[in-house]
Amino acid sequence: MKKYNVGIVGATDTVDQVFVKLLADHPWFEVTRLFASEKSKGQSYENAMEGKWRQSTPIPSKFASIVLETVGDDFTKGDLDIVFSASDSDSAEFIEEKLASVGIGVFSNSSFYRTDRRVPIIIPEINSFHFRAIKYQNFDSNRIITEGRKIKYQDISTSGLGFIVTNPNCTLQAATLPLYPIHSSGSLESVCITSMQAVSGAGYPGVPSLDILGNVIPYIAGGEEDKIKFEIDKIFGEYYDDPMCGFQESLLNISASCNRVPVINGHMVSVNFSTIEDYTKQQIIDMWDNFGPLEFLPSAQKPVLYLHQADRPQPRLDEMTGGGMTVSIGNLRKCDVLDWKFTSFVNNTIRGAAGGSILNAEYWAYHFDQ
Amino acid sequence: MKKYNVGIVGATDTVDQVFVKLLADHPWFEVTRLFASEKSKGQSYENAMEGKWRQSTPIPSKFASIVLETVGDDFTKGDLDIVFSASDSDSAEFIEEKLASVGIGVFSNSSFYRTDRRVPIIIPEINSFHFRAIKYQNFDSNRIITEGRKIKYQDISTSGLGFIVTNPNCTLQAATLPLYPIHSSGSLESVCITSMQAVSGAGYPGVPSLDILGNVIPYIAGGEEDKIKFEIDKIFGEYYDDPMCGFQESLLNISASCNRVPVINGHMVSVNFSTIEDYTKQQIIDMWDNFGPLEFLPSAQKPVLYLHQADRPQPRLDEMTGGGMTVSIGNLRKCDVLDWKFTSFVNNTIRGAAGGSILNAEYWAYHFDQ
Amino acid sequence: MKKYNVGIVGATDTVDQVFVKLLADHPWFEVTRLFASEKSKGQSYENAMEGKWRQSTPIPSKFASIVLETVGDDFTKGDLDIVFSASDSDSAEFIEEKLASVGIGVFSNSSFYRTDRRVPIIIPEINSFHFRAIKYQNFDSNRIITEGRKIKYQDISTSGLGFIVTNPNCTLQAATLPLYPIHSSGSLESVCITSMQAVSGAGYPGVPSLDILGNVIPYIAGGEEDKIKFEIDKIFGEYYDDPMCGFQESLLNISASCNRVPVINGHMVSVNFSTIEDYTKQQIIDMWDNFGPLEFLPSAQKPVLYLHQADRPQPRLDEMTGGGMTVSIGNLRKCDVLDWKFTSFVNNTIRGAAGGSILNAEYWAYHFDQ
Amino acid sequence: MKKYNVGIVGATDTVDQVFVKLLADHPWFEVTRLFASEKSKGQSYENAMEGKWRQSTPIPSKFASIVLETVGDDFTKGDLDIVFSASDSDSAEFIEEKLASVGIGVFSNSSFYRTDRRVPIIIPEINSFHFRAIKYQNFDSNRIITEGRKIKYQDISTSGLGFIVTNPNCTLQAATLPLYPIHSSGSLESVCITSMQAVSGAGYPGVPSLDILGNVIPYIAGGEEDKIKFEIDKIFGEYYDDPMCGFQESLLNISASCNRVPVINGHMVSVNFSTIEDYTKQQIIDMWDNFGPLEFLPSAQKPVLYLHQADRPQPRLDEMTGGGMTVSIGNLRKCDVLDWKFTSFVNNTIRGAAGGSILNAEYWAYHFDQ
Repeated sequence: MKKYNVGIVGATDTVDQVFVKLLADHPWFEVTRLFASEKSKGQSYENAMEGKWRQSTPIPSKFASIVLETVGDDFTKGDLDIVFSASDSDSAEFIEEKLASVGIGVFSNSSFYRTDRRVPIIIPEINSFHFRAIKYQNFDSNRIITEGRKIKYQDISTSGLGFIVTNPNCTLQAATLPLYPIHSSGSLESVCITSMQAVSGAGYPGVPSLDILGNVIPYIAGGEEDKIKFEIDKIFGEYYDDPMCGFQESLLNISASCNRVPVINGHMVSVNFSTIEDYTKQQIIDMWDNFGPLEFLPSAQKPVLYLHQADRPQPRLDEMTGGGMTVSIGNLRKCDVLDWKFTSFVNNTIRGAAGGSILNAEYWAYHFDQ
Repeated sequence: MKKYNVGIVGATDTVDQVFVKLLADHPWFEVTRLFASEKSKGQSYENAMEGKWRQSTPIPSKFASIVLETVGDDFTKGDLDIVFSASDSDSAEFIEEKLASVGIGVFSNSSFYRTDRRVPIIIPEINSFHFRAIKYQNFDSNRIITEGRKIKYQDISTSGLGFIVTNPNCTLQAATLPLYPIHSSGSLESVCITSMQAVSGAGYPGVPSLDILGNVIPYIAGGEEDKIKFEIDKIFGEYYDDPMCGFQESLLNISASCNRVPVINGHMVSVNFSTIEDYTKQQIIDMWDNFGPLEFLPSAQKPVLYLHQADRPQPRLDEMTGGGMTVSIGNLRKCDVLDWKFTSFVNNTIRGAAGGSILNAEYWAYHFDQ
Repeated sequence: MKKYNVGIVGATDTVDQVFVKLLADHPWFEVTRLFASEKSKGQSYENAMEGKWRQSTPIPSKFASIVLETVGDDFTKGDLDIVFSASDSDSAEFIEEKLASVGIGVFSNSSFYRTDRRVPIIIPEINSFHFRAIKYQNFDSNRIITEGRKIKYQDISTSGLGFIVTNPNCTLQAATLPLYPIHSSGSLESVCITSMQAVSGAGYPGVPSLDILGNVIPYIAGGEEDKIKFEIDKIFGEYYDDPMCGFQESLLNISASCNRVPVINGHMVSVNFSTIEDYTKQQIIDMWDNFGPLEFLPSAQKPVLYLHQADRPQPRLDEMTGGGMTVSIGNLRKCDVLDWKFTSFVNNTIRGAAGGSILNAEYWAYHFDQ
Repeated sequence: MKKYNVGIVGATDTVDQVFVKLLADHPWFEVTRLFASEKSKGQSYENAMEGKWRQSTPIPSKFASIVLETVGDDFTKGDLDIVFSASDSDSAEFIEEKLASVGIGVFSNSSFYRTDRRVPIIIPEINSFHFRAIKYQNFDSNRIITEGRKIKYQDISTSGLGFIVTNPNCTLQAATLPLYPIHSSGSLESVCITSMQAVSGAGYPGVPSLDILGNVIPYIAGGEEDKIKFEIDKIFGEYYDDPMCGFQESLLNISASCNRVPVINGHMVSVNFSTIEDYTKQQIIDMWDNFGPLEFLPSAQKPVLYLHQADRPQPRLDEMTGGGMTVSIGNLRKCDVLDWKFTSFVNNTIRGAAGGSILNAEYWAYHFDQ
């Protein structure tokens, strides 16, 4: 594999610390530049993180001395091929478009472009065919070739053109990966998700301890429930290879109820679902057991793991399954309202955020850029 | 109102401490005897509770010197009219039958007799008509009068005959009280409940801290999910005034998914439900606003309270609403799978346990025994 | 007692919500005006508190419609006699001086003026004689009368003159009230305090949940340890009735080590201390048992309560002892380094903050202003 | 190095799960036998641990099929050289003596034999010279040789003789490792320790969640404070190479105050200490920086690490420093009562328990048995 020069936007935030940690020894991606806000500009990463680094392992030495930059109007591509972005949604619009416009492939964990009709939301085990949307993106003007009255797009495989790919909201991955095998057999109908989400999902400083210690908050600000519904619809929907049609909504009925619980890391969901066809419990568990990892990608792990103990998954015990990339599932049982119910769990900062973006970039690099 | 002499079985357990607290100044019920296991027999309540009393207020002085008894084979009624029982399920079978057999009205918080076809599970705002089942109970043999080949039962209003009445599982009350106005209009169809239950629901010592600190356990032992379904079916079902027919299952579709969360007291539930008729949001909220307290009963409070802030109810803020007897509801919104969803919250040790039993006894005393 | 018109500064903050709650039915103090920042000015208290009120009981109805004011340059006394202030330290300097300058008695929970050599820090059971410092204060220029070359001060008992009185840091009260009987017998020598402080001590939003859930932080920002030492020195020190001498440091050796723990409310301290004279355990407990409440003051409660169970005090069980005004003590035992050690506990938002200020105002009103 | 056949007693308990985890890939110690109570006898380890294994990684496959044995009267040595024991104190007396009597080297994490005048408590970086006590132990009768009227002991280096070596209480290691460099320079005088201990220190099920969620308990049952004092005295004391004199108490003044906090793993301590000589802060930090790991031992890590951030150490961030074998220290500052104070932190299940025992066994194997 060729090597990619990689940047990280928002490098001082909590999610980006996970990017930094996961990319420290990546075989394909070499972090060469780090971007932060105006305030930290010019400082070394180590200095800027003084008192802010909240991981249990130290800052990887190779990042310590990188001098922080900002993404401004005069930004130039330099040596960068790929940028991972976890900008907060306010700044994501400008920054990610700017990066794409100069020819960089942006893999974004921000929510801003997820609702953009040009931009795919990708979980590569599920909807890698949505990568096709990249070729119609017009963030990078070099991508568009006008022939007479016809607009044409450069081929996706032409390296060096800028684009934006997002990964979804952290919570929904706990539900979508287990539901995908049923969906892909054409049989999924309705899905009710009730989440119990960790505080790390709200960033830092995030949820005040006065609100959540010994408590449950049945509400996640920022339209979490609607985001989950919208994004599952887009991920599980068809894509027509035409910039005018593009992403279609799935035909699923989806409902999400979101709660915050006093857990540091990892989102639990209780899922009820109905199917068109009948399945036995064993058939569903077999689908999960047979759902294998993507081949050839360094961060790929078994997407889901069914646990047979009745009281699993649990955040503390299952957080690091598959290095935080595997969704743990438990307690599949009949539901008297919909057909089935189960519990599942995602590491929201790894699979649900930084690790998900990196897997997307690996998929793109392996399948479209070689 | 006449005064009742009252006993408490299991008086050294955690739930019973709440009985003790709530009955300290009750206007109708005078606690005269306390029952515990063989181990504590003969000790004063104060001595037996040394290091075990876990309430933030001291042991009420009037109970301190009561000498603990056991309920054995030779138990006699003495001065008792009513006994509140929170025996653990293992001993409830013998003890509660023994008490009823000698002519005592048993109001039980134990689960043992909830599945008995002679015994009602009562939430008095919902199914007080189930009290009619008492008259066919045969725990107290004096209750049965044989006339030739016909078996007759003494009238329920004949004071001094023993019976058993239970109150339901603590969790389901968070769902049933809000759903009752819709059910009673004949329109409720399907209900999905996902619970986030406090550790006090498991008694003492109950849930080990190693299991639940900073964690969620998606499983409650003892068949909690099945209990919830069975008990809602029985409570919301018809009752035919005939010992051969008796309790009918409701026609509802019910599903419960139960989780334990690191909260001390109070169970949260996320509820999705569908109705036969269409309602507006305001119509449902109006039903809740108009759902008034039972009249004349000292412990009765408004059964449900709808809170308009998006992030309510919460265990810490809503625990003591209506003295712990009111279920707090929030965030009613459309559901794309069933029709509606909301969050609700019950104080599991008061409304869900001791307070619920006391309200049942008050209802019986006021309506059937005057 | 005469009635006082009372204002609250910072009325939308967390501590001030406790002021609002405690003053709702106060027999002497009638809240007539509420002050907040520019942002909330002109709104009713109820509107301004939308989503910010974090008490388990609703906003007292009498406060709901009070329109919020600011304390600006043009502030006039109006009907106010007393103002309770919990301004954050940045704004306390201007606001509290302004209030005092127009003739208002300011009882402040802020730290700003605690280090001012004109301003006493008062725990009325301990150092009410420090109230004498008020008469030399020059915040209110009417207080100073120049006779030829001599500066004289109006008598403290002349009502209607402005002054500032503070109550101390919340943590130290857990130690000072138990130590006072030994100190007042002239025998206290050295004190080591190790605190385990609740998150409510840091205000709102305060401590991020990501930092403290399942964790301990051995550091409280803002110089907490030095504050504790300085303030105990001032409170336990002599006062010379002369504006040039004033407050003297105590002769004690004091050391504080501060930790934050995942508790919502109430600070625990482990205290080791040495004495000049020898005492028996019973003698010390007797001092505590005989340490009676201040007479005639509506908020006064027994200052300390010794609990004989080995595992007390505890935040959850002892938070509301004496309505939150009593410090709970436990586990007095010999220390092989200093002479004795014990554990004690203070409700930091009541005795340690709002309740402490109110007790100071009651003491002043009863003893100096009648 | 030669290979040792190793057994684990109490293999189904929580601490022993850590033994199992740490010994899975040990270069010198090969686990060949596992011992548990009568109840589990005859089951495979995997079956016996069904629902009891509480680590985030699965049971190491090499242990899964080992059939559990008990240590009874008829126990024989078989292939075992070393046994690690974390028996609860009740059974430790019989089991550990039995094991030693048949010629096995017992490395015990139980408290029973710590107070025995024949048995050393060892932290190998501190008091490895206490290993000399082994040779006078008479648990294994083959160890004693009578020559006429003289009793002689076999040399410690004679392999294959049974003995018992303990490691200390988990909490005190957080204090003793940092204090050792000062102690070893002959300058340590007085030590006050205030602990904030995690719930894992109480085993499983251990502390009920109802007691500790959002709470602090200022008491650890079983005489924890006295144990800490006794054991530090023994560890820091002299040893005279004579079975009649043996262990001497240190000359230190020691006081411990113990608290339980809602943390899963890792004990924090606030330490105040005085010294005979004067030091600068830098001198003390230098002693810590220069305190190097034991050489040649596979589990040895830097014993202590001084962290320069004011808010460290913290359980969540510093739990796994040095693989859980390094004590993290922070915030060294002057104390106005004793001379200095600092905070330190030990992983109580690794360095404080299983890891400590393994390090002892490694030290013995390397230095006395080659």
